Amino acid sequence: MGIRAIVYGVGRVNCIATRLMIEKGIEIVGAVNRSGTKIGKDLGELSGMSQLGVSVSDDPAHILSTPADIAVIAIYDDLQRMFPIYKQCLEAGVNVVTVGAHASYPWRLEPTLSQQLDDIARTHGVTISGSGNQDFFIVHLGALMSGVCHRIDRIVHRSLTDVNNFGSETAGIAYVGQSVDCFQTKANNQTPSVYTTFWDNIAAALELTVVDVVQTVEPIVTTTPRICRSLNRTIKPGFLIGIRQRLEVFTKENVRMTGENSLWVCDTEEEEYKDWEIMGEPSFKIRVTGLATGFTTASQCVNRIPHIIKAPPGYITIDKLPKLTYRQRLTI
Amino acid sequence: MGIRAIVYGVGRVNCIATRLMIEKGIEIVGAVNRSGTKIGKDLGELSGMSQLGVSVSDDPAHILSTPADIAVIAIYDDLQRMFPIYKQCLEAGVNVVTVGAHASYPWRLEPTLSQQLDDIARTHGVTISGSGNQDFFIVHLGALMSGVCHRIDRIVHRSLTDVNNFGSETAGIAYVGQSVDCFQTKANNQTPSVYTTFWDNIAAALELTVVDVVQTVEPIVTTTPRICRSLNRTIKPGFLIGIRQRLEVFTKENVRMTGENSLWVCDTEEEEYKDWEIMGEPSFKIRVTGLATGFTTASQCVNRIPHIIKAPPGYITIDKLPKLTYRQRLTI
Repeated sequence: MGIRAIVYGVGRVNCIATRLMIEKGIEIVGAVNRSGTKIGKDLGELSGMSQLGVSVSDDPAHILSTPADIAVIAIYDDLQRMFPIYKQCLEAGVNVVTVGAHASYPWRLEPTLSQQLDDIARTHGVTISGSGNQDFFIVHLGALMSGVCHRIDRIVHRSLTDVNNFGSETAGIAYVGQSVDCFQTKANNQTPSVYTTFWDNIAAALELTVVDVVQTVEPIVTTTPRICRSLNRTIKPGFLIGIRQRLEVFTKENVRMTGENSLWVCDTEEEEYKDWEIMGEPSFKIRVTGLATGFTTASQCVNRIPHIIKAPPGYITIDKLPKLTYRQRLTI
Repeated sequence: MGIRAIVYGVGRVNCIATRLMIEKGIEIVGAVNRSGTKIGKDLGELSGMSQLGVSVSDDPAHILSTPADIAVIAIYDDLQRMFPIYKQCLEAGVNVVTVGAHASYPWRLEPTLSQQLDDIARTHGVTISGSGNQDFFIVHLGALMSGVCHRIDRIVHRSLTDVNNFGSETAGIAYVGQSVDCFQTKANNQTPSVYTTFWDNIAAALELTVVDVVQTVEPIVTTTPRICRSLNRTIKPGFLIGIRQRLEVFTKENVRMTGENSLWVCDTEEEEYKDWEIMGEPSFKIRVTGLATGFTTASQCVNRIPHIIKAPPGYITIDKLPKLTYRQRLTI
C-alpha cells in the first residue's frame, strides 16, 4: 500500500527528504513551514526538483485535515518547543517521525511531556518516533557492537560533524561566529547536548539504567578566516567555528559511556568521522568515514517511515523498532 | 529462568564458550566430543577453568537424554556432515545454536536438508540457528549499514582473519602448509566458501534474491618460515600460509555484493580487520579493528542463546532474530 506524507518544516533536511520520498514512491500530500518567503512556493522547486503541485502552507490545521499516514518533521531539537507541533499532528491521527534530537529518547529529559505524547498517540491510534543520523551511526552501531561482548567496562564514541552540512539552526547550536566571551556566558546555561538522548537509546537497548549524564563543552576558535555555508558568511579569526562536547554517562550497572562530539565548520581537508571503541572482553574499534551527515539524517528518517506507521500506537523509540535495512520501495 | 546447555564439540571455540556460559549464569549439563583423548576429561579443566563436574562423553544419545534447553555446537562448517548431529539434537527436543558457517543461512546451498531440519525442529517445538563471528561483524553490520542508503549499487566486504585464532579445522580450510600444486588440484573442486551463506543472510535482510555466487580463490605463499599455532608447526617458504577468497554475489534486483576475505596465518605485526564499503547514495565506509575472531565467534554464539530458545520453532536464521545487544546475565 502506498504511503501519504506531510512535510513539516521545509529546511535543508526536509528538502532532501522530499526528493527521497518521491523517488521511493511516497506521495507528499502537504507541506508546512513557519511564515516567511517559502509560503506559497512549490515544495518540489524548493527541493531542487520539478514542480510537485504541493505549495508550502503556514496553516498546519488546514494541511493536517488532509488524509495522511505520517508527518515528517524537521524543525528544532528540544521537546519543549516541538511539543505543540507533535501534539497537533498526533491529535489529527497522523503518525510522526521527527529528526528533533531530543525526541530520539525523551523519557529521561522530559518525562512529563513524553508521557503526554505517549498518551495522545495511544488515544489516537498513532505512533511518534525520532530518527535521523543517530539511527544507525550512533544508536544501532553502539547498541549492536555491544552484542559481541561478554563484558563491557566502557563504550566510547567520538565524532566530527561538519556544520556546513546543516542549516543555520545547527550553526546556532555550535555557537558558530560568536565570541568566546559570548560563548562563556551562554555555556553556563547550556541546554542538553543533541547527543544526550542517543545514549538513552543505547542504554535502553542494553537494559541499563542511566543515573547521571555530565556534560562539558569547549569552544573551538579559528585562527584563520573560515567560510560557513550554513550562515553564508566568513567567520573571522578569534571567533568560534564550533564546539567539542563531552558527555559522561553513568549507569546503575557501572557500564560507563563517553561521548566526545566535535561539531564545527570543517576546513576543506577535514573529513567527518564517527569512531566507536568498546572496552571490555573483547575490546575493539569501529571507524565510519565518507559521511554526508545532512543527507543521512534525511535518508534514515525516510527509510524508517514504514516501521513507524506499522508500530504499535504510542511513543516508540528507535531502539524498540525493527532492524532498519535497505528497501527498494517504501510501502506498508 | 536459568538456561541449561550441552556443549557439543570440545574444540577451541567451545572451550571459550564454556567459560563465557558459566560466567553468564548458564548451567552446563553435558559435553560431547568424538572419540579420542578428551573423553572422560572434565570440561572445565579442558577450558582452562577449575573442575565443572562435567566429563566429556562420546555418547551423544546418552547426553541428549539429560534435560537441556540448548546444544551449543562447534564442529564442521558444511551442512552435509553436520546434518545428523543437528537432527539428533532437535529430535531430542533440544534447541541448537551452531557456529557451522553454512548453517548461518543454509536454504540456497542445501534446500532439501534445510527443509528437513526446519520440519524436524517444528515437529519437536524447538529452534535451530547458526551464529558466530558473522552475527554482528558481517550479517548485521552489512545489513544495517544498508538502512542508511537511499540507493545501493554495490556492497563490498574485505577482511583479514588470522588462522592462528582457530584450530586445525580452519587451518585445513585455508590450505595452511600445503604446496601450491596440491592447492591447485584441490582448488578445482573447492567447496563453497565459509563466507558464502553470510551473504545469503544479508540478502534475506534486504529482501534481495541471490541468483548466482561466483567464487574464486588465490593461494597465499610464504617466503619466510612462519609459525602456525593452529597446527603447532612452522610453515616452510614456498608453502601456503592461507588463501584469499573472492565472492561475487549477483541479485535479481541488481544490487551487487562482493566479498574479499583473506584467511591466513598472520605475521606478528599484521592486524585482523573487517572493512565495509557501500556504494550508492550515499557511499560510506566502515573499518573494524582490534578483532579477536576466535573469541568473538564464541561470545556472539553464547549471547544469542536466549533469542534462539525464545524464537518460534523451526530453522530461524540470525537475520530473523532480534537485535543482539549486551546483557549482564543470560536468562530466559
